[in-house]
Amino acid sequence: MATARVSIVGVSGYAGVELCKLVSAHPALTLSAAVADRWAGAPLGERVRLRGPAASVVVAPMKDVAAAANAEVALLATPADVSARVAPLLLARGVRVVDLSGAFRLRDASAYPRWYGFEHPAPELLAEAAYGLPEVPELAPSLAGVRLVANPGCYATAAILAVAPLLAARLASPDAIFLDGKSGVTGAGRKVEERLLFNEVDENVGAYRVGRHQHTPEIEQALGIVAGARAQVTFTPHLVPLRRGLVVTAYGRLEGGADLARVRAAFARYYAKRSEVVVVAPDEVAIARVANETHALVGAHADEERRTFVAVAALDNLLKGAASQALQNVCAMLDVPFAAVAS
Amino acid sequence: MATARVSIVGVSGYAGVELCKLVSAHPALTLSAAVADRWAGAPLGERVRLRGPAASVVVAPMKDVAAAANAEVALLATPADVSARVAPLLLARGVRVVDLSGAFRLRDASAYPRWYGFEHPAPELLAEAAYGLPEVPELAPSLAGVRLVANPGCYATAAILAVAPLLAARLASPDAIFLDGKSGVTGAGRKVEERLLFNEVDENVGAYRVGRHQHTPEIEQALGIVAGARAQVTFTPHLVPLRRGLVVTAYGRLEGGADLARVRAAFARYYAKRSEVVVVAPDEVAIARVANETHALVGAHADEERRTFVAVAALDNLLKGAASQALQNVCAMLDVPFAAVAS
Amino acid sequence: MATARVSIVGVSGYAGVELCKLVSAHPALTLSAAVADRWAGAPLGERVRLRGPAASVVVAPMKDVAAAANAEVALLATPADVSARVAPLLLARGVRVVDLSGAFRLRDASAYPRWYGFEHPAPELLAEAAYGLPEVPELAPSLAGVRLVANPGCYATAAILAVAPLLAARLASPDAIFLDGKSGVTGAGRKVEERLLFNEVDENVGAYRVGRHQHTPEIEQALGIVAGARAQVTFTPHLVPLRRGLVVTAYGRLEGGADLARVRAAFARYYAKRSEVVVVAPDEVAIARVANETHALVGAHADEERRTFVAVAALDNLLKGAASQALQNVCAMLDVPFAAVAS
Amino acid sequence: MATARVSIVGVSGYAGVELCKLVSAHPALTLSAAVADRWAGAPLGERVRLRGPAASVVVAPMKDVAAAANAEVALLATPADVSARVAPLLLARGVRVVDLSGAFRLRDASAYPRWYGFEHPAPELLAEAAYGLPEVPELAPSLAGVRLVANPGCYATAAILAVAPLLAARLASPDAIFLDGKSGVTGAGRKVEERLLFNEVDENVGAYRVGRHQHTPEIEQALGIVAGARAQVTFTPHLVPLRRGLVVTAYGRLEGGADLARVRAAFARYYAKRSEVVVVAPDEVAIARVANETHALVGAHADEERRTFVAVAALDNLLKGAASQALQNVCAMLDVPFAAVAS
Repeated sequence: MATARVSIVGVSGYAGVELCKLVSAHPALTLSAAVADRWAGAPLGERVRLRGPAASVVVAPMKDVAAAANAEVALLATPADVSARVAPLLLARGVRVVDLSGAFRLRDASAYPRWYGFEHPAPELLAEAAYGLPEVPELAPSLAGVRLVANPGCYATAAILAVAPLLAARLASPDAIFLDGKSGVTGAGRKVEERLLFNEVDENVGAYRVGRHQHTPEIEQALGIVAGARAQVTFTPHLVPLRRGLVVTAYGRLEGGADLARVRAAFARYYAKRSEVVVVAPDEVAIARVANETHALVGAHADEERRTFVAVAALDNLLKGAASQALQNVCAMLDVPFAAVAS
Repeated sequence: MATARVSIVGVSGYAGVELCKLVSAHPALTLSAAVADRWAGAPLGERVRLRGPAASVVVAPMKDVAAAANAEVALLATPADVSARVAPLLLARGVRVVDLSGAFRLRDASAYPRWYGFEHPAPELLAEAAYGLPEVPELAPSLAGVRLVANPGCYATAAILAVAPLLAARLASPDAIFLDGKSGVTGAGRKVEERLLFNEVDENVGAYRVGRHQHTPEIEQALGIVAGARAQVTFTPHLVPLRRGLVVTAYGRLEGGADLARVRAAFARYYAKRSEVVVVAPDEVAIARVANETHALVGAHADEERRTFVAVAALDNLLKGAASQALQNVCAMLDVPFAAVAS
Repeated sequence: MATARVSIVGVSGYAGVELCKLVSAHPALTLSAAVADRWAGAPLGERVRLRGPAASVVVAPMKDVAAAANAEVALLATPADVSARVAPLLLARGVRVVDLSGAFRLRDASAYPRWYGFEHPAPELLAEAAYGLPEVPELAPSLAGVRLVANPGCYATAAILAVAPLLAARLASPDAIFLDGKSGVTGAGRKVEERLLFNEVDENVGAYRVGRHQHTPEIEQALGIVAGARAQVTFTPHLVPLRRGLVVTAYGRLEGGADLARVRAAFARYYAKRSEVVVVAPDEVAIARVANETHALVGAHADEERRTFVAVAALDNLLKGAASQALQNVCAMLDVPFAAVAS
Repeated sequence: MATARVSIVGVSGYAGVELCKLVSAHPALTLSAAVADRWAGAPLGERVRLRGPAASVVVAPMKDVAAAANAEVALLATPADVSARVAPLLLARGVRVVDLSGAFRLRDASAYPRWYGFEHPAPELLAEAAYGLPEVPELAPSLAGVRLVANPGCYATAAILAVAPLLAARLASPDAIFLDGKSGVTGAGRKVEERLLFNEVDENVGAYRVGRHQHTPEIEQALGIVAGARAQVTFTPHLVPLRRGLVVTAYGRLEGGADLARVRAAFARYYAKRSEVVVVAPDEVAIARVANETHALVGAHADEERRTFVAVAALDNLLKGAASQALQNVCAMLDVPFAAVAS
């Protein structure tokens, strides 16, 4: 069978490793190149347990990032400022790009200095980039001819999946949504920092980046599109003592004639034909049920007395929150089935 | 020195063990009796590492709960339905009571069947019971002559401590407050249930009792008193993989002229003279900093753009959320200093 | 392609779930029947995330265990006393059996009352059963015509893999081998017992069954065959706060001309052509590197000064210590490749 | 009451913090000085929750380590090479020293380059230093007039406590003892290293420093003194996913007429009058029972069939394995009771 070539930049991080495994296991794809300074010069198979030809791909250093142009689609698992520089180079060589960082998620270039700490070097690409969350079709109806896909943030994915059905059905107010996130430690990447030491994380939970997490504008942009109105979210992430997975609990006010039955029906309908989002009761949404899985779980409750809702979503931050989501996008771009790799 | 006699009913649970340690270490108190079926007949010192005379107190079975009447104050660390039956017996014998269950926290007897699953056997005591959270003086100005104290719930304590300063200063709206709780596993007590097995809890976080946790009416009652208006809360607890401690993150709308400076000032002022509540930045509120400690940490943020607040409180569910809180109440009732036992 | 039918008895335990996934993913096998009281009546796909036809296999209750006879090979993931009764029934119907319990591991029927607590109901099968650890060929040269395979115990697998190369090469003395095991909690199965509660296991390590763990005679039997002499082992298991995986550290005296170079060479040679045992430095043997993997890691050190050795082996107790080991055995019995399912 | 002045060098590490708490809580001691670069200039009370005058002691930088001479006894919680330089300075000023590092534990100066990586700068002190493990009186009969005490290593303490009763009673052979250690992560100190990140430690157990841990010669020296014969130990430490506490499981051959009854009697007798070592059954020795406690648990089993023993010891590596052990030594030096601080 003719397979499509896919390259990966940033293979040595947690998401990069997952991308290697997923791409090399997909029967319609071939891993054609891999880039990362940390592993430069080594065959991939020495660092990741892989079978087949992907194991012998030799990792190129970042200075030779052009090696990633030997592909139909390049996956970027690099920091946002790196992606913002690398994506234009690859696009210029005719390679389509799925970027896992935040570099192309926000349409408003002026938001980058505040939320990401850099002036965007390629603002003209922001309007072109498609936000790749296929279960929320309001965001990008099709990836068929798309050159550049912004893969959603891990918290953002859970938040949007939890709230979109309510906003799409006009059952909740978009102007004051509260999001409480709890993430395992792989969400912070492979950094050697004191706050990520075992002794700091174990037997501990705490809030961080209160009022300034960079997924806030991304979520507001997406939910605003779904609601057809300005969305405002207050988001607080928390670090919890586990490795993989996150859960977001969303709160807000019901609107119009919303009641419990309508809320449940809205979720069932919105995700009816989606293999990678499964609707359950909110008490059954749990990280352990999605760790190492490619699907998200969502569930919602309506408090009819207080006219409020609670919606919960859980996913594996390295899979549905990063790598398997990226592969869903690659498959949609190339029009090949994703299901083949989901276990 | 003459010391006051204190008895404990329900010594064998997690909170009971902490009560034993605290009471026996307090120089102004003597542990005069202990009751629990699980340890009946054994000297306390065989089950809890205690020094001094408390070690030789022999545990009585529940059928001899009257043994607890040999005290000036009895502490009840029993399930709510048991406390509801035992407290009247002890009060009738002239013993003052601090109850750690929910049996006397709600003023409205008709709420018990819905939230606690039983018809209250002593509704006449509900009006008399003082809600013992001394750092929120609106709730019970003094315990000097009080016979019956309802010790607050662990989540409720954190929720009330996080929100009371804002409501007292009229900086936030009481009518839609969202509370997201994350608790370690001792919060569920020492039950042998499948959901509390290591394999279920480890590497997992999930919501439970969505829309039906029994601390909801307790928090609404307390915050309503502080606000001088009806308070409505939507509360979702989550189980996190650790033993001791919980954190509650509260969300809602700012009101009036609230801004970040006023919010911070309100917290600083409200807890200025309180040794057992410490105000810090919200990013510094963490379970590991309060585990095995008798104080709570609180911190708040105001999002001036979206007109919302985030307030975070952490405490040890077995100490400030149960046993050391109870001891604060005993000390206030007997007019002896609490500080002696805080380490 | 014609596929072989495989049935599973005891699908609802941890090992049973892994067997379901492995069998249903193997291109040469078809899951033809599943038995377990806990899930009786439900299609397997409602309890385990499976793709393909295995999802619609309806689970039979144990009273209909004969349903498992619809297969060329039946896998038994049942307690030892159950396996001892069920295996003869299936063999009598012409089905080959791989048993994951200890029911057929010991050749000496008189050992069962002491180590397993029951009189063996089918002692005549003990001589026939092959001990299925293919990387230690001294134990069972071939499974080609074998009707009954005893799948090794999880600790026993690690212990034997750690020590066999030394005994086979006559580099260590078989008469006083010390084995220190550390296992995650899935090793204990899905039992609702107080000692397996999160609050008992978390932040804890302790020895259990000191001097009386039932894998002791199994290891002595296997190592005795490899050594060609009586082997005596002293084995102490410990529970560690994690879910999957175990490590066994083995100690003993060097023999003959053993030195570090010869010890290393013996391990390299013994496992040279084995895909499911990988030799590394002893400091690199770690549970996290084998969790969710089908291979074991082993490494050894020789202390030339003290004339002792240290050998370490790690594996996933549910895979190489149970389910994937069983599948290796099934594949060997049917002469189909195992590699297809190893990821 | 007149109190003795105690200074602490290295207050900012995990053991240093525990020393602060213990010294400041002891009624017969006054914390007179504290030294650590990390906290230099800050009052101790800002970094450690302390009550009383110790909170206002201002931390001095290491260049002013002479500040620690304002004391009758100085506690050194510094790396071995630092202690080796600082102890002579303080001794020269007439201050007695308890050193928590390995700098003065080995009598043989020539062992330091191999096991600690430095040439010892004060070898003349090695003969003078007393090894401060009071429950093993063979090692140092009294600390009454002693100027310099080497506080035992954490693993070494557990290993010696587990084996000493057997060697003292001549029930076990000293020439091939196998020690398997499992320690929580505070045992490694507060280092920001990749191997100590949460993602590396969580759900993992692995051996480290196989054949080269620096407690090996320390244990051999101590056990040799107890046995009155050369002792040889093979020691393998493992890192386990928890914060505080360690367990050592010791193995070896029984000697002479040893049987289970004699082994048990030897332990009971050896620790009969010791408050800080408690003898229990080996299955009851567990880290969770000694975490945050000042005592160790030990238990032993004899396998009469195989003529081997298993002895298990658990302790809190920061308390009985470091800080509370040091305080026991200070109290013995000053002839004041230790019990006052044990909780």
